[in-house]
Amino acid sequence: MKLASLRCERPDGRLVVVSRDLNRAVDAGHLAPSLRDTLERWEAVAPGLERLYAALNAGDAADAFDFDPSACAAPLPRSFQWCDASAFLNHGRLMERAFNTAPIPDFGTIPVMYQGASDDFLGPHDDVPLPSESLGIDFEGEFGVILDRVPMGTQAPQALERVRLLVQVNDWSLRALGPREMASGFGFLQAKPSTSFAPVAITPDELGDDWRDGRVHLDLHVAWNDAHFGQPNGGEMNFSFGELIAHAARTRSLGAGTIVGSGTVSNVDRAVGSACIAERRVIEVLDHGAPRTAFMRFGDRVRMEARTRDGGAPFGSIEQRVVQANEAGGEQA
Amino acid sequence: MKLASLRCERPDGRLVVVSRDLNRAVDAGHLAPSLRDTLERWEAVAPGLERLYAALNAGDAADAFDFDPSACAAPLPRSFQWCDASAFLNHGRLMERAFNTAPIPDFGTIPVMYQGASDDFLGPHDDVPLPSESLGIDFEGEFGVILDRVPMGTQAPQALERVRLLVQVNDWSLRALGPREMASGFGFLQAKPSTSFAPVAITPDELGDDWRDGRVHLDLHVAWNDAHFGQPNGGEMNFSFGELIAHAARTRSLGAGTIVGSGTVSNVDRAVGSACIAERRVIEVLDHGAPRTAFMRFGDRVRMEARTRDGGAPFGSIEQRVVQANEAGGEQA
Repeated sequence: MKLASLRCERPDGRLVVVSRDLNRAVDAGHLAPSLRDTLERWEAVAPGLERLYAALNAGDAADAFDFDPSACAAPLPRSFQWCDASAFLNHGRLMERAFNTAPIPDFGTIPVMYQGASDDFLGPHDDVPLPSESLGIDFEGEFGVILDRVPMGTQAPQALERVRLLVQVNDWSLRALGPREMASGFGFLQAKPSTSFAPVAITPDELGDDWRDGRVHLDLHVAWNDAHFGQPNGGEMNFSFGELIAHAARTRSLGAGTIVGSGTVSNVDRAVGSACIAERRVIEVLDHGAPRTAFMRFGDRVRMEARTRDGGAPFGSIEQRVVQANEAGGEQA
Repeated sequence: MKLASLRCERPDGRLVVVSRDLNRAVDAGHLAPSLRDTLERWEAVAPGLERLYAALNAGDAADAFDFDPSACAAPLPRSFQWCDASAFLNHGRLMERAFNTAPIPDFGTIPVMYQGASDDFLGPHDDVPLPSESLGIDFEGEFGVILDRVPMGTQAPQALERVRLLVQVNDWSLRALGPREMASGFGFLQAKPSTSFAPVAITPDELGDDWRDGRVHLDLHVAWNDAHFGQPNGGEMNFSFGELIAHAARTRSLGAGTIVGSGTVSNVDRAVGSACIAERRVIEVLDHGAPRTAFMRFGDRVRMEARTRDGGAPFGSIEQRVVQANEAGGEQA
């Protein structure tokens, strides 16, 4: 099934079930007030949501309405945990060359993962307010999973069974701030502003065979100001989501609603392009001796859409614009 | 005023107001279901809580009962954000020597801060389940602040005005895992299991002059298996909490309920001892050529209590025991 959270006066949004073709939606407030609440009691709530989804797809849901992605918050407008990996080694190795940082120890055998901010996610069409163009504004196209509670010490095969929903992510990054935060050893903080999500979170069965081996085997189509930028495939992930979850749960339990991200989708085949600007820039350095592509300017737009072989977009689209944050209060002007 | 969350079937706990002397408590459920909810609408809820606190201290609160710290969860059993700094430079510089890591760039002028896990905090008397003694189990005594919403770009003086509550923290650390995670540049993840909190969160006015310059000017008394370990003072913090909050809010807004930590309390005067084992060990290396103190064993206990000059403990005490996590499911045996 497909679930979304419409913006409302409540910070966790209003839970709706969305039709498979993303055309129609129906309120699910009588089953659960929010997706966050749903995840905390999945076994009790999910069957009712599945029945509502079946009725909606059959055209039998009372009070259904046209689905408007621009009315969406992130599926989870906030969560108690967001852990983002760098599980496409091709991306990580290019980034080492981009930032001239030392090789990460055990990069091929132990996942790297940072703890991200989860208090203030952005919706699929939300403007992205940032303080300055000089910070190296970049997008990062990713996939992610939303989990039920995971006990400490859970191993990868069992960890994969805790996946409840799949999501498509834009992990905004400020490249001018990254190297200093990496050099501190404490990891990304200012370099990672609010993360954005495609409109719907979907159960794994929605992808059929495109969800296998703990990976999303879809091309992630990225366009910058309407120009095609890349379409790397998620199947090339070097660690499965099961392995990433087990890594996060090694020394602690993970609460229900935890989101784990793949890191920037990236393929060895350069012909498919990239899902972030920094990666294109380092390839330009390798090919031409210097980067030719600048980072984003205020007013720039990015579009991200994972597509099936028949052209469907199971998560809907991320379509965002970068804007100048209000210097007085920091809120968007 | 002083607020605590008693464990109950709800994951955010049951909000109670606690008397100044920590002897009595009264349910505040008619004002707000949880402390998390309180922080999301502080202006509306706080005045009623203050009135209840005044009545409780005067012996006039109906249905008051004896306060039992062992029944407490963390004041916020979970939160949408936990950012922990390393604002005592003395600690940071000793840690560089302990782990033989490169000096952190701009350490004296730009705060370092990591994004911590906030989905599963431990209460003041909770056992601490961990998978292995070989991971270098260590405590870290800290202070922290709980915030109202902070807009992006807020500067330090205004940031300090967003502090609603003060807390006392034990930021558990696994020293064997830290260096590899620092070398990855992605920061601490497995090296930081669930963080623990003293029983009550207090409004800044509770400390009088001991809360000034955005710092908690109290000695943090630490005992390991009943032996005195250290009592460094929080006033020596090299960055104020206002500066730390402004650092976290530079490129994003901070949601209400965000917790910001000081990092391990540490003083230049070695006679006061330390608030973590790693710091004592590196001092032993400097003095004797090798560490003499081992990290914690299962069954070991730690006690932490910030004390006023008259011997009061305004946050109550953290009293915890480290135990072996259940290998089968990861939960505590």
